Amino acid sequence: MHTFKELVADFGQRFGVRHFPETPVSLYEPGEYFLSWGGKRIRPVMCLMGNEMFDHIKPDSYEVATAIELFHNFTLIHDDIMDEAPLRRGMETVHMKYGSNTALLTGDVMMIRAYEYLNKINPQYLSRILALFNKTAREVCEGQQLDIDFEKMTDVSLGAYIEMISLKTSVLLAASLEMGAIIGGASEGNCRHLYEFGKNLGIAFQIQDDYLDAFGDPEKFGKEVGGDIRQNKKTFLLLHALEVANDDQKKTLQHLMQENPADKVQKVLSIFKDCNVDAWANSLKEKYLQTALKHIDDIAVMAVRKKPLEELADFLIQREY
Amino acid sequence: MHTFKELVADFGQRFGVRHFPETPVSLYEPGEYFLSWGGKRIRPVMCLMGNEMFDHIKPDSYEVATAIELFHNFTLIHDDIMDEAPLRRGMETVHMKYGSNTALLTGDVMMIRAYEYLNKINPQYLSRILALFNKTAREVCEGQQLDIDFEKMTDVSLGAYIEMISLKTSVLLAASLEMGAIIGGASEGNCRHLYEFGKNLGIAFQIQDDYLDAFGDPEKFGKEVGGDIRQNKKTFLLLHALEVANDDQKKTLQHLMQENPADKVQKVLSIFKDCNVDAWANSLKEKYLQTALKHIDDIAVMAVRKKPLEELADFLIQREY
Repeated sequence: MHTFKELVADFGQRFGVRHFPETPVSLYEPGEYFLSWGGKRIRPVMCLMGNEMFDHIKPDSYEVATAIELFHNFTLIHDDIMDEAPLRRGMETVHMKYGSNTALLTGDVMMIRAYEYLNKINPQYLSRILALFNKTAREVCEGQQLDIDFEKMTDVSLGAYIEMISLKTSVLLAASLEMGAIIGGASEGNCRHLYEFGKNLGIAFQIQDDYLDAFGDPEKFGKEVGGDIRQNKKTFLLLHALEVANDDQKKTLQHLMQENPADKVQKVLSIFKDCNVDAWANSLKEKYLQTALKHIDDIAVMAVRKKPLEELADFLIQREY
Repeated sequence: MHTFKELVADFGQRFGVRHFPETPVSLYEPGEYFLSWGGKRIRPVMCLMGNEMFDHIKPDSYEVATAIELFHNFTLIHDDIMDEAPLRRGMETVHMKYGSNTALLTGDVMMIRAYEYLNKINPQYLSRILALFNKTAREVCEGQQLDIDFEKMTDVSLGAYIEMISLKTSVLLAASLEMGAIIGGASEGNCRHLYEFGKNLGIAFQIQDDYLDAFGDPEKFGKEVGGDIRQNKKTFLLLHALEVANDDQKKTLQHLMQENPADKVQKVLSIFKDCNVDAWANSLKEKYLQTALKHIDDIAVMAVRKKPLEELADFLIQREY
């Protein structure tokens, strides 16, 4: 068994090679440029962990993990075009550096390359892995479209937001674990538990992300606090606040979102606190985390095999107590 | 055996169903909108013909044909974004009607849907079909990128142009035939001949397309003559003219392309004729057509089985004599 950190190092090294042909340079250089930035590679490592929970890591899992990471990067390149983002992790985005048309094609060809890696695996698993990969890929597009839709809507329910977050980010985490588990020979029941673990963990992580953006320690959080508030981003916090606030608070919130005064972040945070949004978010996060961990409990393997995934949950989700 | 026309009707009817889930409407309606326009469905029908050359049409061929048509439509949606095309066949393009971001996602999810259809086929062929599909899909992206690159270049060689055209359009025709042939149980040698038939036929068709844009009868051609010339599009005709013209003619051509005078089309056509570009284009088209037909000759099946593809070549390529 390997720890999350060991697998991050292992996969990072294997993934740090060229993934595209040399020519046409104009098509493949932008893809290599984007992949060269590195990253935590959480999704592919979850695939390896899903495998190792049931058996030693098989070569096929590395192919699937690579396909997952390429797919994830394809979504980032296309998302950056849609968001007109000039930078990602301090680097010039692909569309800024090479133009939108090339960025669009770079994303397209990266997705196709993902399928080329998938097609390297043992035909015995191919159809089952492909089915889960395709379904998940389609769901990620659905989540992204819902995110676009919600930006223009004023009345998004918390339930609809959770569905969107689940599609946009959680299902890929869940499917990464399950694809590894399939290759590791897990039963269908165990696969389902692992999938649900990943899905619930992803939602807990997003709640935490929203929470930290508002209430995090800027030094630990690594970015300026209140970015979501400044951009009127729909988050767990804002949607809950709009649900529980009294009429005065609601009016003030809406006014702040329209007028963008200089003290907007401070004033929104003060309403959040008055509405106990912070405590609510922590308890909701805890609820999803507990649901996730319960699914790990229910997997029919020895406790020692569950350790790395429990550690991953600890690593991703900070507990308050 | 069926004729091309019969298969167009058969496939058209089967393809004329809903291809996406109902929700989210905002993601899937644009895809259904684009597919509802109909079309000749040449590529999927070539897949069915590739199958029927060797055996009766198997259900798997319809799945692959559907995947091919969805892939082709995905490329059209993304190409329209890149070209900022307001209309296609007189209809509002997806990005004009629904916005660029949704059009981008509609294309993405249409490609994923293509892979879902591919995954319905017998696992026995899956890996081989997937390998050819992936390679072809990647090549189509390469062709599109080269096309973008060539637009900005002043010195594109005829050889480079043929390579671009081959990647952008011919390989998908070729692969459509071969995927059908694989399902029909063709030998590797026969598959290769069929692929080369499709590839050469595609190039002949593009030469004809370029020719008709300059020299076609506007009534038969169905669109205004000279559109490529007005847009300075690199075509077989222009690239050859730039290769064979004398210094004066070259200067005049370059001047016309820069200045866009009112009589540009007429003057460029006059240089084309002085350089015998029309006769040259016809003989080059004939050369590719003959190469294509030779590959059909070389396929080891009875003559009667070759008839539909020979008729397809006759239908697509008009002969001058």
